Amino acid sequence: MSQMDVDEPVCLPRLSRVAVCGGTHGNELSGVYLVRELLKLQRRPSEDDDEEPTSLLTVLSNPRAVQQGRRYTDTDLNRCFTLATLNGPTSDSPPYEILRARELNAMLGPKGGPGAVDLVCDLHNTTANMGLCFIAYSDCDWICLHIFKYLQRQMPDVPMRFVHLGSSEKESYSLDSVGKHGFAMEIGPQPHGVVRSDIYGLMNAGVQHMLDWVRLFNSGAVFEGGFVDVFTLVKNIDYPRDEKTHNITAAVHSHLQDRDFCLLRPHDPLFQTFSGETLRYSGSEPLYAFFINEGSYYEKGIALSLARKRRLVIPAIRAQTEEEEQARGFTSEEEE
Amino acid sequence: MSQMDVDEPVCLPRLSRVAVCGGTHGNELSGVYLVRELLKLQRRPSEDDDEEPTSLLTVLSNPRAVQQGRRYTDTDLNRCFTLATLNGPTSDSPPYEILRARELNAMLGPKGGPGAVDLVCDLHNTTANMGLCFIAYSDCDWICLHIFKYLQRQMPDVPMRFVHLGSSEKESYSLDSVGKHGFAMEIGPQPHGVVRSDIYGLMNAGVQHMLDWVRLFNSGAVFEGGFVDVFTLVKNIDYPRDEKTHNITAAVHSHLQDRDFCLLRPHDPLFQTFSGETLRYSGSEPLYAFFINEGSYYEKGIALSLARKRRLVIPAIRAQTEEEEQARGFTSEEEE
Repeated sequence: MSQMDVDEPVCLPRLSRVAVCGGTHGNELSGVYLVRELLKLQRRPSEDDDEEPTSLLTVLSNPRAVQQGRRYTDTDLNRCFTLATLNGPTSDSPPYEILRARELNAMLGPKGGPGAVDLVCDLHNTTANMGLCFIAYSDCDWICLHIFKYLQRQMPDVPMRFVHLGSSEKESYSLDSVGKHGFAMEIGPQPHGVVRSDIYGLMNAGVQHMLDWVRLFNSGAVFEGGFVDVFTLVKNIDYPRDEKTHNITAAVHSHLQDRDFCLLRPHDPLFQTFSGETLRYSGSEPLYAFFINEGSYYEKGIALSLARKRRLVIPAIRAQTEEEEQARGFTSEEEE
Repeated sequence: MSQMDVDEPVCLPRLSRVAVCGGTHGNELSGVYLVRELLKLQRRPSEDDDEEPTSLLTVLSNPRAVQQGRRYTDTDLNRCFTLATLNGPTSDSPPYEILRARELNAMLGPKGGPGAVDLVCDLHNTTANMGLCFIAYSDCDWICLHIFKYLQRQMPDVPMRFVHLGSSEKESYSLDSVGKHGFAMEIGPQPHGVVRSDIYGLMNAGVQHMLDWVRLFNSGAVFEGGFVDVFTLVKNIDYPRDEKTHNITAAVHSHLQDRDFCLLRPHDPLFQTFSGETLRYSGSEPLYAFFINEGSYYEKGIALSLARKRRLVIPAIRAQTEEEEQARGFTSEEEE
């Protein structure tokens, strides 16, 4: 059966274990407080606990960085989930975040293994005016794309985009890559070290809708196909810098600031130097700008990212029935 | 002569040494980049250097915190300028910021002494939507109030307020208190660790107008009296917190967020708990809210500050002539 068959829904395994993670970056506070709130609720016994077909794992990913109010303590945790870092040899005194990544991989993974959780939703904030974004490695993960489509419909007033990190040649490095499916839910603008009730409210609503979708999916609902606009990362652009000191010499131009997902055309204003000069985009292809002036990316040499937009057609999907899952299980074993 | 005499301008000593400081908090980036830009310009020889009646000192206050992209390294530098901290005994390994405060006091002070610079303008950013604020300890420093009034006139489209830190009983603790006159120029909203070209542009304009005013004043211009609205700090309000963990349990309410200098009335929404409940202002006096949800104040236990607004009448002023200064100098000596 073709996955793109319009009439027949694609059947996918149920999502019995879902993880919601926050505080992967310790100063991105909406996720920190939402995870703490979810943990509080989980501690309260609920009458319909038995009926819940999905187990929810709620994780504060980097408690040490949260405690210090910083993105990380030794190294960026959300770059530590490559197979090499997770499974390679350790030094005598490995960075805290590498140890923590291995703990999280043991808890939610192992990455790539059959015991990994079915879905990881990792909560992030950005200082950029990006609204609510899904960020994922794949543009053909129907689960993530359908959840995105569902949120778009449930929250029609919220600017929402699906960012695809591009070619699969580059290995996935972030916490959400530990699950069988996974994405980062990135919401902004919110300064790091600050929690805004509007942004917190968006994130809370997004997570609740995501969990609703999982319940519907697991209970056998069919989700119609359709299309999703996907922004595929093409490249990052750094700030202009002083050759000697490496200090930045310009800020993002005021015409571009806060205009995430606008189309940046050749010769459009890009930067404003601190002495007042305008620098223009020298590329030849119009591209969509995002992560514009994200605070944590100064140290990574990224002033903004650029993407191509494509419209993807996604198939209808439904969860496999128990019988189908068992049959498929037998098939897999026979194939080995 | 009464200082409030409407007809005769009050005569004040000229401002021959002015300091502009940035990076007192290392992650408040508009001031950091503006100071670096001013330092670059000063290195270029100018034709009219000889004509400049004012010496300008430009200082990156906390270079170590700037380098680390943090507010401070050991302790908040901008709380280290009390006489006790500047002049008291030191421990064996004093915090970096205490040593740096003493260096700055030697460079710009000594605080309270006749050798101190005439004016300190210390540049700050806030995540709060405060526009351009002067923050000062005194509500009768005609120099600061006249500079403020001049900026209001020169930048009519910019929301601008004068914040008075209140009763002189409490000792001044910030860098600007080292000068004979001084104020913090606080501009927001800008996330910490980020520089926005609009906020940088405002700060640059504010500093240029301030320096223009000093030149005009020193050259003998008379500045008409008038009025200035002053917001005097009454009290700070902390976030609701969990008794055991001390974690905050609510964010500033979305009705109040970004509405700095609005009048908060009894029973107005104040906080929104992370479970969705609205908490209201329980005070009995309507007061003006500012520093609403400032990122650096979570650790200080301040969710917002509240002020009373008063309209101050300020006298006309002019600089003393050289003769007047000499005469006053003799008088002072005779008085001793």
